[in-house]
Amino acid sequence: MIVILKQNASQERIDALMQSIRAQGVDIHFSRGTQETLLGLVGDTTHVDEDWLRANDIVADVRRVSEPYKLANRRFHPQDSLIPASNTVIGEGHFAVIAGPCSVESEEQLLCVAQAVKASGATLLRGGAFKPRTSPYSFQGLENRGLELLRLARQATGLPIVTEIMSETQLDDFADVDVIQVGARNMQNFRLLKELGHCKKPILLKRGLSSTIEELLMSAEYILAGGNENVILCERGIRTFEKMIRNNLDISAVPIIKQKSHLPVIIDPSHAAGIAWMVEPLARTAIAAGADGLMIEVHNNPKCALCDGAQSLDPVQFDHLMQDVRRRVAFEGKQLG
Amino acid sequence: MIVILKQNASQERIDALMQSIRAQGVDIHFSRGTQETLLGLVGDTTHVDEDWLRANDIVADVRRVSEPYKLANRRFHPQDSLIPASNTVIGEGHFAVIAGPCSVESEEQLLCVAQAVKASGATLLRGGAFKPRTSPYSFQGLENRGLELLRLARQATGLPIVTEIMSETQLDDFADVDVIQVGARNMQNFRLLKELGHCKKPILLKRGLSSTIEELLMSAEYILAGGNENVILCERGIRTFEKMIRNNLDISAVPIIKQKSHLPVIIDPSHAAGIAWMVEPLARTAIAAGADGLMIEVHNNPKCALCDGAQSLDPVQFDHLMQDVRRRVAFEGKQLG
Amino acid sequence: MIVILKQNASQERIDALMQSIRAQGVDIHFSRGTQETLLGLVGDTTHVDEDWLRANDIVADVRRVSEPYKLANRRFHPQDSLIPASNTVIGEGHFAVIAGPCSVESEEQLLCVAQAVKASGATLLRGGAFKPRTSPYSFQGLENRGLELLRLARQATGLPIVTEIMSETQLDDFADVDVIQVGARNMQNFRLLKELGHCKKPILLKRGLSSTIEELLMSAEYILAGGNENVILCERGIRTFEKMIRNNLDISAVPIIKQKSHLPVIIDPSHAAGIAWMVEPLARTAIAAGADGLMIEVHNNPKCALCDGAQSLDPVQFDHLMQDVRRRVAFEGKQLG
Amino acid sequence: MIVILKQNASQERIDALMQSIRAQGVDIHFSRGTQETLLGLVGDTTHVDEDWLRANDIVADVRRVSEPYKLANRRFHPQDSLIPASNTVIGEGHFAVIAGPCSVESEEQLLCVAQAVKASGATLLRGGAFKPRTSPYSFQGLENRGLELLRLARQATGLPIVTEIMSETQLDDFADVDVIQVGARNMQNFRLLKELGHCKKPILLKRGLSSTIEELLMSAEYILAGGNENVILCERGIRTFEKMIRNNLDISAVPIIKQKSHLPVIIDPSHAAGIAWMVEPLARTAIAAGADGLMIEVHNNPKCALCDGAQSLDPVQFDHLMQDVRRRVAFEGKQLG
Repeated sequence: MIVILKQNASQERIDALMQSIRAQGVDIHFSRGTQETLLGLVGDTTHVDEDWLRANDIVADVRRVSEPYKLANRRFHPQDSLIPASNTVIGEGHFAVIAGPCSVESEEQLLCVAQAVKASGATLLRGGAFKPRTSPYSFQGLENRGLELLRLARQATGLPIVTEIMSETQLDDFADVDVIQVGARNMQNFRLLKELGHCKKPILLKRGLSSTIEELLMSAEYILAGGNENVILCERGIRTFEKMIRNNLDISAVPIIKQKSHLPVIIDPSHAAGIAWMVEPLARTAIAAGADGLMIEVHNNPKCALCDGAQSLDPVQFDHLMQDVRRRVAFEGKQLG
Repeated sequence: MIVILKQNASQERIDALMQSIRAQGVDIHFSRGTQETLLGLVGDTTHVDEDWLRANDIVADVRRVSEPYKLANRRFHPQDSLIPASNTVIGEGHFAVIAGPCSVESEEQLLCVAQAVKASGATLLRGGAFKPRTSPYSFQGLENRGLELLRLARQATGLPIVTEIMSETQLDDFADVDVIQVGARNMQNFRLLKELGHCKKPILLKRGLSSTIEELLMSAEYILAGGNENVILCERGIRTFEKMIRNNLDISAVPIIKQKSHLPVIIDPSHAAGIAWMVEPLARTAIAAGADGLMIEVHNNPKCALCDGAQSLDPVQFDHLMQDVRRRVAFEGKQLG
Repeated sequence: MIVILKQNASQERIDALMQSIRAQGVDIHFSRGTQETLLGLVGDTTHVDEDWLRANDIVADVRRVSEPYKLANRRFHPQDSLIPASNTVIGEGHFAVIAGPCSVESEEQLLCVAQAVKASGATLLRGGAFKPRTSPYSFQGLENRGLELLRLARQATGLPIVTEIMSETQLDDFADVDVIQVGARNMQNFRLLKELGHCKKPILLKRGLSSTIEELLMSAEYILAGGNENVILCERGIRTFEKMIRNNLDISAVPIIKQKSHLPVIIDPSHAAGIAWMVEPLARTAIAAGADGLMIEVHNNPKCALCDGAQSLDPVQFDHLMQDVRRRVAFEGKQLG
Repeated sequence: MIVILKQNASQERIDALMQSIRAQGVDIHFSRGTQETLLGLVGDTTHVDEDWLRANDIVADVRRVSEPYKLANRRFHPQDSLIPASNTVIGEGHFAVIAGPCSVESEEQLLCVAQAVKASGATLLRGGAFKPRTSPYSFQGLENRGLELLRLARQATGLPIVTEIMSETQLDDFADVDVIQVGARNMQNFRLLKELGHCKKPILLKRGLSSTIEELLMSAEYILAGGNENVILCERGIRTFEKMIRNNLDISAVPIIKQKSHLPVIIDPSHAAGIAWMVEPLARTAIAAGADGLMIEVHNNPKCALCDGAQSLDPVQFDHLMQDVRRRVAFEGKQLG
């Protein structure tokens, strides 16, 4: 961490600042030049607060050099993490395919889709019971009845279930869920993240629409700091100026996260694309980028879906996609599930 | 709402689609051209689901013409809303100044700041008891002790208090708060919004860092649809590529919201700027744009603040700002408080 | 194209507007509803000016349904274009690898890199003679001497040369260049685009840092409309809020452009990444997305490069990359060059 | 400038690097810590190339502390610049209003608008003779005939004329223009900027749609470095995700530029808004922010304008705006012209 001091800072004020910094267990290298004076903070600066430094009126600027996250950091955990999720694992060469409807609509719908995606090779079943919708007038999900149907579908297919939580008050209802998903809009719902840190379940943490990769890793850090090591990251498109796609899939997030962190990262091409025909080409790029899995929306009858039908594949399209996915996962030297 | 059909759609499929649309109480004007066929949906289309239309494989695209929000819409509520907040009001020519520390740190600090901002002319007191922090290692607020201190400061100064809620589980603890703030990161925490719709307190709803104005109005609609009419909107900077400011203050949001909605809108220049010297020029633009108020961070000793010190004014700077604000509010033909 | 009229528009004014539209050879379907009145313009609306419509005070909004580009549009040219470039071709299953230094620095440097990339399998040689630099104090290129060295390197290796033009005044100097590159900052230099439309050389048109895909296609349309059919598009990263990469590679641009246009599209992972280690993973995603080629910066001694050294591969790294590229291009059923 | 070295860098390599840096006349402060080793470069680092440093494989990162521009920098030129433009001046308390049609369409149109804006108090006349249009099929301007008409309008009204240049080949034709405008799309047309540095005319340099403020200042630096000190900067909206405005007016650019540079800065609310009703509120914020002027599109008959009619005011609306502008300019203690 580097602190740039104002040119007119008095030596007395500088000494006082250096003393408070050293009191936090950090060493300082001091460089005074004609145009600027720098403090180089060396040692573990994770707990040094940038805001506190910036607020000092002799400080012109602060630049962080080392990452502000520790438990999520590959530097201190060089090996890839392998996350167990019921009868399957995610990461370290095990490629996950999480498929299912955007929202659980009925027993018939869910079982039909679950059996179809299982037959095509999906390794986990997704389905929304509680739906975060922009409009209060849109369908909000079957709620607890949806969770019940997911358990039923798991029983019928053996697929572990992944579903989205909306609030820390639901943790008891989610006790029987295999992977708890945190949606993009809740990526910085810190109350929820803290509570998820106290359970042991795998957490699928989606990146916010305009969250930086560092913010995503800091949100993972919240869960890890609570004691839960089972975090899977998910990139699902970021918000940009481009109008021809719903959200711009940030494919470079995969190699960047892999370099910075040991946590597995999967791609959700359905939410990025917003339209079914683009799911397959984006899924191909995810595999090539080194992602640890895919999350794909599948609906038995997309044109009757209660939400996000436009981006859902039907079972025939999904089966076609999976044939391609298999070839590509093998090409990358990984295995499905 | 306009539905653009694919060129090869059969008349049979078109008829079926038109029938399902009409069943929702909406009229259709049908235009067939050589290059495209259009359905013009006329009537109240608030409840017609765009996703459902897009998922139909004979549909090429859907364009909404009228706004998807109704209760927040000026079209159906032409007069400005005036929101009562304890002993003051916000909107319709009443300009609010909400000032105070980013976070409540101690009785001494809060009382000192509260008395100073009161003396300078602030109309409400802000202060964070629960702090949403990017890092789990940063100060998280005094929590319920902070709420207690805010009540004390209200008693001492007579200023109504504004503080941020983090979760719907805190509603009982917030029963005695005058204005409940929803932070930018929780703008689409729909569980929280729904519960806030069931209380009668004024809600200060901050725009998310990359939320569109329409999404902000849809989040307000969640609260309004629950029966709570007391919503105040707050613009606090959006995330862009520019690096010289923390968040780009979207000043055009003020005239746009004023045209689209009857709800009051205030500006938080402190969070946009991220640095104290920029607060005053941004505050000036807010008044000129027609905003209904300002939210300003003030700290008795910014360089010792536990969060956001860099953007906080000290009481002398705030007093200087308020002298300018008074002149400008009068120039616009409005009154303070 | 759909024109949405204001609610209070008089029939007389509507009739006048409809008459002026019909005078442009376009049919109109008229739909009057209780909340909105719509004009559906059907026929070839490429020449109807949206601005002219929007300026009419009875018009509330205008939505274009069909694309504003014609010659670049796949709808009117369903087959992929195959662009000849001296002794090679680009598109339709022919995968191009354009490699070389960011800027030409000396005869020794260029020949060394040219021979190395040729040996590793590159199909074209790139090298900047004129460099667009943000700072007037940075190295601006060897200029005409650089063009001379490129010709020399072509003679030595047989590789066609690709280099960037800065102004239409340079066209004579570029007469002997095989592919003329238009840089991202000049994508909307319309004087230059018009002149390039009058020559017959292949043009490599790079997408601007925050240009939409539609704007890129409109810039291609400028060249095509001038009579030059040989346009190759290039995606090289867009500007977003993310700080861990120089520019966010917009990988979805590949399938979108392929759907909208018949022109080939290549990816420049070097400029997107801004850092050498990320070039290889991004190149893999480009091939998987269906791109028609790659543009890669290679330098014999990156740490002494006069520009963009950080993102340049050295010849050994490039050779390693090409072994992987070969396998992947074959996997996609395409051939190199 | 701070250079962060990789942990494993050998002392020999570090010494070599430090020697090459010192050879550029820059001092170094060296700090070795347990987690990172830093070089603090002190002295004039304007000419030290970040790219060159980054390309060195022992370098992990480079952070610039001081600004890369010198002539545009307020640090070395503390007083505001006052730019003469024919019979008027811009900056230092002199507020400019540049008004006129988007494009010159006919003698009648231009004279009518010019006389109207003069009567309402405009201090300069704008009008496009060469128009940069996204589509090759849109009206491209009257070209040299347009320049002729502008001279005629100047003669009739006495207003200095401002018009946009497209290429350095037009400099002779622009010899009689009072202020040469560089459009947003040409902000980084470096050939053009260099040539403009060799003339003595005032240059109105518009910020690119997604250019950072630093890039804008670097483009100004190109002109200043050529010897032309008469540069006026113009903010006209940036590209973001928001859909309710054409471009987000970045109002904070005004105080930021004022702090960083001595050059005057004006605001173009017409191009930002894209719609006439929003011009007035945005103009108000520009004055409050401390801008040195406004650039406003006015058309005698907006609904027949050949371009950008939707955002043009008619003479009556402009006169109304000017009455408000006068009051506000006086309130800020400035004078018109």
